[in-house]
Amino acid sequence: MTLEAIRYRSGSLQILNQLLLPHETVFEEIRSVQDGYEAIKSMKVRGAPAIAIVGCLSLAVELRAGAGGDDPVTFIRESLCHLTSARPTAVNMGRAARELMEFSENESMEKSGEPLRESVIGWIEEMLERDVSDNRKIGNFGAQHILSGVPRDSVTILTHCNTGSLATAGYGTALGVVRSLHALGRLKRVYCTETRPYNQGARLTAYEAVAEGFPATLITDSTSALTMREKSITAVVVGADRVVANGDTANKIGTYMLAIAAKHHGIPFYVAAPSTSCDLSLESGRDIVIEQRPAEELTSINGVPVAAPGIEVWNPAFDVTPHQLITGGIITELGVFLPSELQAALTGRLTAL
Amino acid sequence: MTLEAIRYRSGSLQILNQLLLPHETVFEEIRSVQDGYEAIKSMKVRGAPAIAIVGCLSLAVELRAGAGGDDPVTFIRESLCHLTSARPTAVNMGRAARELMEFSENESMEKSGEPLRESVIGWIEEMLERDVSDNRKIGNFGAQHILSGVPRDSVTILTHCNTGSLATAGYGTALGVVRSLHALGRLKRVYCTETRPYNQGARLTAYEAVAEGFPATLITDSTSALTMREKSITAVVVGADRVVANGDTANKIGTYMLAIAAKHHGIPFYVAAPSTSCDLSLESGRDIVIEQRPAEELTSINGVPVAAPGIEVWNPAFDVTPHQLITGGIITELGVFLPSELQAALTGRLTAL
Repeated sequence: MTLEAIRYRSGSLQILNQLLLPHETVFEEIRSVQDGYEAIKSMKVRGAPAIAIVGCLSLAVELRAGAGGDDPVTFIRESLCHLTSARPTAVNMGRAARELMEFSENESMEKSGEPLRESVIGWIEEMLERDVSDNRKIGNFGAQHILSGVPRDSVTILTHCNTGSLATAGYGTALGVVRSLHALGRLKRVYCTETRPYNQGARLTAYEAVAEGFPATLITDSTSALTMREKSITAVVVGADRVVANGDTANKIGTYMLAIAAKHHGIPFYVAAPSTSCDLSLESGRDIVIEQRPAEELTSINGVPVAAPGIEVWNPAFDVTPHQLITGGIITELGVFLPSELQAALTGRLTAL
Repeated sequence: MTLEAIRYRSGSLQILNQLLLPHETVFEEIRSVQDGYEAIKSMKVRGAPAIAIVGCLSLAVELRAGAGGDDPVTFIRESLCHLTSARPTAVNMGRAARELMEFSENESMEKSGEPLRESVIGWIEEMLERDVSDNRKIGNFGAQHILSGVPRDSVTILTHCNTGSLATAGYGTALGVVRSLHALGRLKRVYCTETRPYNQGARLTAYEAVAEGFPATLITDSTSALTMREKSITAVVVGADRVVANGDTANKIGTYMLAIAAKHHGIPFYVAAPSTSCDLSLESGRDIVIEQRPAEELTSINGVPVAAPGIEVWNPAFDVTPHQLITGGIITELGVFLPSELQAALTGRLTAL
């Protein structure tokens, strides 16, 4: 069974409040765009794909209740602007807002009132379904690719950060690959890094692993190299914030370190990401700007100070792993590709697996 | 100025209570062996060399006050047994106790009462001085070796865990090298890992850096690889729990990961350790048993739970870095040696630098 962090039935939306995890499992009703905005702003929901889905679904809920009257386009535009402003750096919400606005304006040439609302709700529900089905494809392609190297054995995976049901519309990307391996009865164990400084691995991935019954072990980030040497890791699988044209991949800080250690141990290193996370407009990882996060993420934990006052801090949110270190491949909903094949594959010039 | 964590004047001992760091700087009076035992047991003082020094100095303080009467040998024996039992895995205290007991018994052939007490106090004070002077030598040898590669420039160092005044009798090992570079006016910056799960880097190394005015930056452990790529790291310098005959080195978990990343970036990797931390009785790192620590070190921080309840945890206290990755050398009070030269150097068959 897959952990449901987003519960949507036509006209009704509930989300798992991630601020209370892992200690309390509380679902909260989202009745309006304003509820959706607040859930995103306060980080009750996080993860770029999940933010976009929850934002759009909050709009669908309000549209189902008749919002916007005879001319819902204005309401839709204002709602999408508001939702995008909640976490402006989450690119998926911005992209979804642009696409949905374009669709709404086209539809409004022919429709208004209830029929227009129905069309827009349909588009949003399809977005939810597509996100989950893309993730399932990623999970299955990734699992098959990893298993093709070990015909009979169970496999041991090492992963980083949280890329599961809690970060997506459901199923997950890198953790979706783990989920597929578990469903096939071929997952021996998954090692999850705690993922400093924000502890998404300890708080969220460990929570999903316990909830779903994966055989799972939590380690500190810097235990990863020893784990590769001592625990027979079959593959390292991580998610991506952004994959650029040459296959260089920006992901949670520490990913680059894992890729170096995987290379040193001869362990295949995979990036799992939907094609919507691939940005062919950038040629190489050098073009990606690294976001800097506040020092407080390191100097205190849950509000409890841990570091010496006055110390300087460098806290980049992610790092860029050069494509040469992505030795397993990039797992997308279209198949698994070598970094050198990615551009051709995404532009339809190559079909893999 | 060097941070004084252990303040000793004949007959008087004060220690910096490390449990209150980094938030409060409180020195506590140690008046007896029992005070010393409790300070070690409760971890007001930690770090294997520091434990041995504080234990022995607490004995010196009580001897100075006349403890043991006409026949102090029995008092000394019972005191050393008691002190060794406070943290039985701290090998330095056990070694110091054996050596001091042997010395006391030999002295007692010719002396008793006050003259015997004076001899024993002298031995202990010499141990304190030797530890600090050995660390100064380590600092100077290490600094010269690193600077020999960059004749004019200032250097940027990356270090792990706490190996400074707070872990030794004073000055420090790996952080002693940093201290020497700073004293020479050649330290551009030191990057300190926070050192999960016990945060010695964030709590203690950052505290020393702020106290002494080193230009210093705190990073998460898994930011190390990005730091090596982006911040022009001149050398990585770490301490050691144990160096064995072939140069393989057991040290705080994460050291192995740093050594792999340093190799990947072509950055020299140094281990700084007094010869007393070298154990030539073991041939290779395969013979070192890795201590497992409680899951709670990962699942909660300062008593605040962070991880999902029910998750399994693997929490090894240290890892072993193979000698092939120690590309800079092993810095001892006798000089800087390649791992392949260590055995000959320590047995007097080789003199370096």
